[in-house]
Amino acid sequence: MTLIDRPPAHADARPATQRLLEALDARRPGHALPAALYTDPDLHELDLRFIWQRQWIFVGSVAEVPEAGDYLTVDLGPSSVLVLRDDDEQVRAFRNVCRHRGARLVEPGHGSVGNLVCGYHRWTYGTDGALRHAPQLMPGTDPACLGLRTVALREVAGLLFVCLAADPPDDLDRVAEVVDPYLAPHRLSSAKVAAQVDLVEDGNWKLTMENNRECYHCDGHPELLCSLFPTWGLAAHQVPERLRADHERYLQAERDLVARCEELGLPHALVDDLVHRSVGFRVQREPLDGAGESFSPDGRALVRRLLGDLPEFRLGRLGLHTQPNAWFHLQADHAITFAALPLSVDRTLVRTTWLVDADAEEGVDYDVEELTATWRATNAQDADFVALTQAGVADPGYEPGPYSEAEGQVEAFVSWYADRMREEVAR
Amino acid sequence: MTLIDRPPAHADARPATQRLLEALDARRPGHALPAALYTDPDLHELDLRFIWQRQWIFVGSVAEVPEAGDYLTVDLGPSSVLVLRDDDEQVRAFRNVCRHRGARLVEPGHGSVGNLVCGYHRWTYGTDGALRHAPQLMPGTDPACLGLRTVALREVAGLLFVCLAADPPDDLDRVAEVVDPYLAPHRLSSAKVAAQVDLVEDGNWKLTMENNRECYHCDGHPELLCSLFPTWGLAAHQVPERLRADHERYLQAERDLVARCEELGLPHALVDDLVHRSVGFRVQREPLDGAGESFSPDGRALVRRLLGDLPEFRLGRLGLHTQPNAWFHLQADHAITFAALPLSVDRTLVRTTWLVDADAEEGVDYDVEELTATWRATNAQDADFVALTQAGVADPGYEPGPYSEAEGQVEAFVSWYADRMREEVAR
Amino acid sequence: MTLIDRPPAHADARPATQRLLEALDARRPGHALPAALYTDPDLHELDLRFIWQRQWIFVGSVAEVPEAGDYLTVDLGPSSVLVLRDDDEQVRAFRNVCRHRGARLVEPGHGSVGNLVCGYHRWTYGTDGALRHAPQLMPGTDPACLGLRTVALREVAGLLFVCLAADPPDDLDRVAEVVDPYLAPHRLSSAKVAAQVDLVEDGNWKLTMENNRECYHCDGHPELLCSLFPTWGLAAHQVPERLRADHERYLQAERDLVARCEELGLPHALVDDLVHRSVGFRVQREPLDGAGESFSPDGRALVRRLLGDLPEFRLGRLGLHTQPNAWFHLQADHAITFAALPLSVDRTLVRTTWLVDADAEEGVDYDVEELTATWRATNAQDADFVALTQAGVADPGYEPGPYSEAEGQVEAFVSWYADRMREEVAR
Repeated sequence: MTLIDRPPAHADARPATQRLLEALDARRPGHALPAALYTDPDLHELDLRFIWQRQWIFVGSVAEVPEAGDYLTVDLGPSSVLVLRDDDEQVRAFRNVCRHRGARLVEPGHGSVGNLVCGYHRWTYGTDGALRHAPQLMPGTDPACLGLRTVALREVAGLLFVCLAADPPDDLDRVAEVVDPYLAPHRLSSAKVAAQVDLVEDGNWKLTMENNRECYHCDGHPELLCSLFPTWGLAAHQVPERLRADHERYLQAERDLVARCEELGLPHALVDDLVHRSVGFRVQREPLDGAGESFSPDGRALVRRLLGDLPEFRLGRLGLHTQPNAWFHLQADHAITFAALPLSVDRTLVRTTWLVDADAEEGVDYDVEELTATWRATNAQDADFVALTQAGVADPGYEPGPYSEAEGQVEAFVSWYADRMREEVAR
Repeated sequence: MTLIDRPPAHADARPATQRLLEALDARRPGHALPAALYTDPDLHELDLRFIWQRQWIFVGSVAEVPEAGDYLTVDLGPSSVLVLRDDDEQVRAFRNVCRHRGARLVEPGHGSVGNLVCGYHRWTYGTDGALRHAPQLMPGTDPACLGLRTVALREVAGLLFVCLAADPPDDLDRVAEVVDPYLAPHRLSSAKVAAQVDLVEDGNWKLTMENNRECYHCDGHPELLCSLFPTWGLAAHQVPERLRADHERYLQAERDLVARCEELGLPHALVDDLVHRSVGFRVQREPLDGAGESFSPDGRALVRRLLGDLPEFRLGRLGLHTQPNAWFHLQADHAITFAALPLSVDRTLVRTTWLVDADAEEGVDYDVEELTATWRATNAQDADFVALTQAGVADPGYEPGPYSEAEGQVEAFVSWYADRMREEVAR
Repeated sequence: MTLIDRPPAHADARPATQRLLEALDARRPGHALPAALYTDPDLHELDLRFIWQRQWIFVGSVAEVPEAGDYLTVDLGPSSVLVLRDDDEQVRAFRNVCRHRGARLVEPGHGSVGNLVCGYHRWTYGTDGALRHAPQLMPGTDPACLGLRTVALREVAGLLFVCLAADPPDDLDRVAEVVDPYLAPHRLSSAKVAAQVDLVEDGNWKLTMENNRECYHCDGHPELLCSLFPTWGLAAHQVPERLRADHERYLQAERDLVARCEELGLPHALVDDLVHRSVGFRVQREPLDGAGESFSPDGRALVRRLLGDLPEFRLGRLGLHTQPNAWFHLQADHAITFAALPLSVDRTLVRTTWLVDADAEEGVDYDVEELTATWRATNAQDADFVALTQAGVADPGYEPGPYSEAEGQVEAFVSWYADRMREEVAR
């Protein structure tokens, strides 16, 4: 049978899990995923159940909830999660749903509260989630059983991960042991938010992630290219003659960075464990081009103050990737967190947050426009690429093509996804 | 299994009726309905079949079609019903669909016609629905078999109810016997429309009804509270000390109203039969606060002319609730009808109509802005509550919570709904 | 069971093909189609598979891609087809999808290219579809296997038809033999595009076609009526007395046209083979009213230059209908092509293109507003009729009605559709 004749998903009476397994089985190693995994609303519902309601998801930073009572909300598919710093300064996560008749408890976004008061019937919860006040309860109704439903939450060096499952995967702590030494010197837990931008991409969340996992398309990112060495992502044997000098420059910058990290006791070596665990991850410190300090046209720092304990600016970029939905760039002057969050089978929210040292002053130590320019432009370009791809994979004429040598992390993401989905179906 | 793991409705291959029964069985007495009944498009289709295409539905008043040829249309889900006063002054209802190739016959809204002429091929029907003219019919085509399809219609004291079923439930006449004496003195059949407002609420129709069936949320209705006694809905033992004086005032007002009704021969006692019949209903005359005449800031009448045969203004509010979709407030100076009509699984139209005496003159006897102010504000507030609730019940984190002592009529509505749905599945 | 009780399509767990066959079986001869065939998204998916991905579809004219590198795109449901004149002047069709990760290759519409370069990773294809350039391919990846997927394309007298099937129906060539002598003298292959207008109709594509296939509704087309004899479509015995003189005028005009065609060697006789072949068609030359030259208020030509080899203006209208999606009017001064293209179960694109002689100069030999006035107005009126009908057939109160004597070609279209769908289910 040719792809042309594949039955349209929603006219398909077979169980969604069967269609999921057939799509996963149909994938050829080294090739993109079959279309149904990007376009079938029923399979998207399985993504929500098996990835977004089962795995650890990056949702934001402690810097977004600095004071007691501060909260943020994040939507994992249809599930709204309320992340709140309670009166004891502990960050907690709850379902953003009133226990009475289900009204949404707080409006989407960021805010600050004393108690959590439902707008409908004024049921009132403490920041610990306990039901404090509800008038005219029926005899026999026990308020102690009507506290907000909790959601598992972990902090890793100032980054917040939640898991909607009753029994979260247990390997986040082990991943934290590895990545914490890389991140700790940046002291994100005491950083402050300089800017946050939400962008909606017209594509499936996996296309957003696949796009992030390669720089094979980086010719389409003129602003970003200022910070990347021209031979970034090329193996030595792939470097064309005309780029030989650039490559030497890159190798020297890498040697300098490694030497300096050794002196300063900063971990830098690549650890890549993207596929074979629930919290697949990859961490590495790499040099940046130009002055080598930050994502700016000339490579110089965009913030005058160093983040946390760092002694100097020229420390390149600490890159962290976590499955299924995040990537991070930590420089000596600022850090950027990226979270991809599915809105529907073909729409994805990308939330980008710029963090600077708590003592850095806007207008004095940094300019927000300058600070955010490179990644606002790059995100907008990526949104176009993702939309082009969603349109194409929804076409019956689409056949998954072969990945290039520059797309190893895309293959890793897709493999991680396929393994997790199979595991969940088998549970 | 936790709610988190419930399969997404539209990935669910089981027959919709099976899912319906499972959802109804999952409901705990005294608790809100399971989410699927508010969010699953397939179960909404069953609501359309078992409620909206089977039960008697309030659609408007005779005052909306005062002259021969006047019509209104109303959509019951995908079914457009044409309510028309024919040339013999009789109000009839038809399917708003041409018998030729199905073109919509009249545009939505209100209007007036001589004959009903289809805009497509000019097939022409009389106000009695008979096909009067259709050119070039094939030999053997019998125009007598091509009249408009009729829809069952009944008038109750000037209120119009339709039923799309071929065999409508037979108890509307018995309900009419009970409620007619309450409504008759207001003479709605000879009233006139002062205003009509359509509002779309972003929620399932049952959430709109549940919201209407309780005043537990009335703190959110500042304008409406002027007309309600502060202890409205509280049992004697629930009245807090600080409201003791208000409660005495309420009890006195009630005694006065009862006495006056007895003198005037106006029925006033509560009749509550909301659950155990197809046309569940509840009727009662109750005092209003302040001057006790109408829904105004000081309780005084908003219209200078009395409705129908009524001798005086201070007669409080005659409240009528009918399942599945209507509620009514009849004061001595004006009456208000409310119809909830489903647009989709998560959108509902609320049509509010203000009726005044036929001889009342706009600008002289009443001001439309003043007349409609309280309920325009209250409806807008309710629309917000319904939208908050729809967002929350669509969240996998939603668990149906317990009703309070103030939500008895919500329980009654939900029970009526569950009973009707089970009956229809069993037919 | 009454229509009221028919289960809503998408709550229906039966396979879509079974529902399709039941709907086709439920159709009474001489009557419109059952509602599900116009409203059920699953059955629309079967339309896409069995009609739009199997049959020959009219997509445009060679005049739209006059030069090497010129292209147009057309969407057949979710399938975007790229029609391109290659470097050897041959018109080809490809899937508009990159072979790498599926990005849409060219933007929708018309344009011109040297090579086809994917905007995502810069994979580059020649106008022959071959992959010319793709960096860092994995060892063992063969670029020769990664050319653009081709789509079958045929030209008939300057009109372009494509078929998405791997094994296109074989009768287009035989149809071409019949219609080519009718069209050839108009020389469309060397015409030029004077105007093109895309209009979206809010209805199923079959309603668009059914509307085109009859003039029973032409009272609704005042501009068009100028060009049609008042007795158009009436059999002799149906002509009312008051139109007798008009009918005589029509018969005379027809005799004149036939005589002139015989002298000029122009084929004119009706050939009607709409039902019993894949490329159902109907062709005929007919007189126009007034001056008999063109679709203008007075019947005079709208373009000063004759199309192709034609010797004079008064040659009426050469009408060509092809199943499933096109109709054509060829006059001596200009030709008009119409393509209906489904956007969704209830939205259809109608693309209208006006062709004039290559040497005709805009502003000198014709005025675009004048040239397009009649059919822009007529298309807008038809869009209203189609929207009215879609609204009505989606109403559970819809019952397919009887066709009149004036709707023989509607019956033919519907029969063609039913036969093709049954054939495909049986394959």
